[in-house]
Amino acid sequence: MVGDTDDLVVRTPEAFRRAGIDVWIRHRVTAVDLGRHLVEVTDLDTARTYWESFDRLLLATGARPVIPDAIDASLAGVYGVKSLDDARAIQHALDAAPGASVVVVGGGYVGVEMAENLRRIGRSVTVIDRNPALMSSLDPDMSQRVTELALSLGIKVALEENLTGLDAHGGVVRAVQTDRARHPADIVILGLGVRPEAELAASAGIPLGVGGAVHVDDHCRTGIQDVLAAGDCADAYDVVRRQYVYQPLATHASKQGRIAGLAVAGRSGRFPGVTGTAVTQIGNAEIARTGIGEREIRSLNIDGAAAAISSTTRVGYMPGASAVHVKLWGERGSGRLLGAQIVGGPGAGKRIDVVATALMMAMTVEDLLGLDLAYSPGLSDTWDPVQVAARVLVRDL
Amino acid sequence: MVGDTDDLVVRTPEAFRRAGIDVWIRHRVTAVDLGRHLVEVTDLDTARTYWESFDRLLLATGARPVIPDAIDASLAGVYGVKSLDDARAIQHALDAAPGASVVVVGGGYVGVEMAENLRRIGRSVTVIDRNPALMSSLDPDMSQRVTELALSLGIKVALEENLTGLDAHGGVVRAVQTDRARHPADIVILGLGVRPEAELAASAGIPLGVGGAVHVDDHCRTGIQDVLAAGDCADAYDVVRRQYVYQPLATHASKQGRIAGLAVAGRSGRFPGVTGTAVTQIGNAEIARTGIGEREIRSLNIDGAAAAISSTTRVGYMPGASAVHVKLWGERGSGRLLGAQIVGGPGAGKRIDVVATALMMAMTVEDLLGLDLAYSPGLSDTWDPVQVAARVLVRDL
Repeated sequence: MVGDTDDLVVRTPEAFRRAGIDVWIRHRVTAVDLGRHLVEVTDLDTARTYWESFDRLLLATGARPVIPDAIDASLAGVYGVKSLDDARAIQHALDAAPGASVVVVGGGYVGVEMAENLRRIGRSVTVIDRNPALMSSLDPDMSQRVTELALSLGIKVALEENLTGLDAHGGVVRAVQTDRARHPADIVILGLGVRPEAELAASAGIPLGVGGAVHVDDHCRTGIQDVLAAGDCADAYDVVRRQYVYQPLATHASKQGRIAGLAVAGRSGRFPGVTGTAVTQIGNAEIARTGIGEREIRSLNIDGAAAAISSTTRVGYMPGASAVHVKLWGERGSGRLLGAQIVGGPGAGKRIDVVATALMMAMTVEDLLGLDLAYSPGLSDTWDPVQVAARVLVRDL
Repeated sequence: MVGDTDDLVVRTPEAFRRAGIDVWIRHRVTAVDLGRHLVEVTDLDTARTYWESFDRLLLATGARPVIPDAIDASLAGVYGVKSLDDARAIQHALDAAPGASVVVVGGGYVGVEMAENLRRIGRSVTVIDRNPALMSSLDPDMSQRVTELALSLGIKVALEENLTGLDAHGGVVRAVQTDRARHPADIVILGLGVRPEAELAASAGIPLGVGGAVHVDDHCRTGIQDVLAAGDCADAYDVVRRQYVYQPLATHASKQGRIAGLAVAGRSGRFPGVTGTAVTQIGNAEIARTGIGEREIRSLNIDGAAAAISSTTRVGYMPGASAVHVKLWGERGSGRLLGAQIVGGPGAGKRIDVVATALMMAMTVEDLLGLDLAYSPGLSDTWDPVQVAARVLVRDL
């Protein structure tokens, strides 16, 4: 366990200042005047408002947790999961009420990770999701595995339930109400994803794209001269879907940040887009995906075929070998690789990176099969599990 | 530890027969008549010799351990490392002499793996190598790390020593003699690599290539009508060096075997070549490489630049994070990625696969930097260590 939330701060304002970067915390930009290259700034401590000029403007306003209309987030006991302050508040609430009932609303990555960590510290927790399985962005057979993993850790799961509201008493939450049940709750954690913080951009007339995010090109340019955007407030091009997507992930934010930083400094760099890669852990299991799966393939009208195989993280005869399940999708006719999903023991998850690399280069399933991947009995079989899946899939394409 | 060497048999003759494949063990092919499509076979049990016809012939004669002229391998106590019989013989010798001095000649992958496993079962072992470090196919700075890892496990290492002979008494080995020392030894294990078993092919007039291996194209064809070859007896095209190489590895053998099998069955498949990927473990450390390093880059007259970085297998604040050292090579001007070497804790080694994939697709270092690789604090930093190295290297290209 991490000792203190302060350990999670990647870089302090002081570290930025030492690097020669002016940092103004507790100052909010409230408006942008694109024509005059000015931003309106409010000092939150003094309430003083002033205008500051810029040569180039980089929007990195991030995202905020989704709060459904049915929820009054101002109730005591209701928490989002986005900032370190959220983490501190949740920690404080847990410490103050050791016997509290915790309900997590939303069974995606954030919801499942919250639930798993609560179980790890011995807390009772229920995850509510409207879909038939947790992590339903995966294919049904894979999300079923995730649901079983969660259940095996003692996480209570309420599926196919739609949130209808919160019961409260005296401004304090008491239960989560769905269309099928009432779940008593002293602490409610919202894991329903995030939305881009793009109001500032929108009010300045900077074009928004998919999901209401600031639309950027592969140089993080917004289309407005001298205005760039990067990270959770911006969209990104998905090279597999061949369309823009809103995927607020740390990996994209870091890479877009680098490209935008280069552009601000007058240098060149290109953000090649995303392939939809993500990984997480539940107990000892690792869950990873990249590219597109059943749902996207259907909605994009692609003629897809899948192979689902089971292999092992190490050669089967080696101590410590554990099962790994790989599902691989390809396009009939072209043979193009479309995506992969992995659920398995330690060492399984990061194997998705080979497929993520292959997707970025528009490789075929046959190409994947020919890759010279590393083998040693303690680390992999002679055919890596993703290649075992490719070997089966290639026959159907 | 694996319970029994029999557990290491991937497929028994009976399993092949059940699959409808005739298998003749203890039968040696002693000649090939290419013109008449015949092979001469000797039954080793009856000494009967006969001719058998073929439509297509696949040579999969494998390799045998290198035995230097200075060594009399017929001495008792001297062992190669190639077959399961070798493993059984070494195991038997170790069991019979718990206090035996063991010397491993050769500090490459096989030698280091042997030494590490001997230490694991509590045996004293010395590795002799003529180079200034173990695993000297890596760059000097990385092979130095490997040497230090071996020393930390209590492996004795004798470097820059050239084998001159074996001391024996009554047909039993007593010591390994080098140009600098005499190493007492009851058991001598030869880890000096392997040579292709290509005499049968050569005597039939089938062309040999690099290292005396059977030369094959990307369909495992030998250039002789209806004669194919695959595995440790054959060469392979290295897409990074852009030349043929002899790399007798299980991964290549499996993939060539598939392609040759398809060809024998009249179907098509292409072996795209190799990128020189290998991984091994020493204690808890993982050591991996792909592509080319300092030595090859110099000999190929490539204008190369390298970046060597240290990162962690997980985000630094996570329990279980351990150091990972990545060295990445690229070509100045073109920006082409040339190779990588990794030494690090659990989870470090298989990260080489991303670079192996990138090399197969002739990606640039900039391309590597843009990849959408998986991030979760327990499995990786937001920039995977190979991308941290790319971020440094890209400035020098």
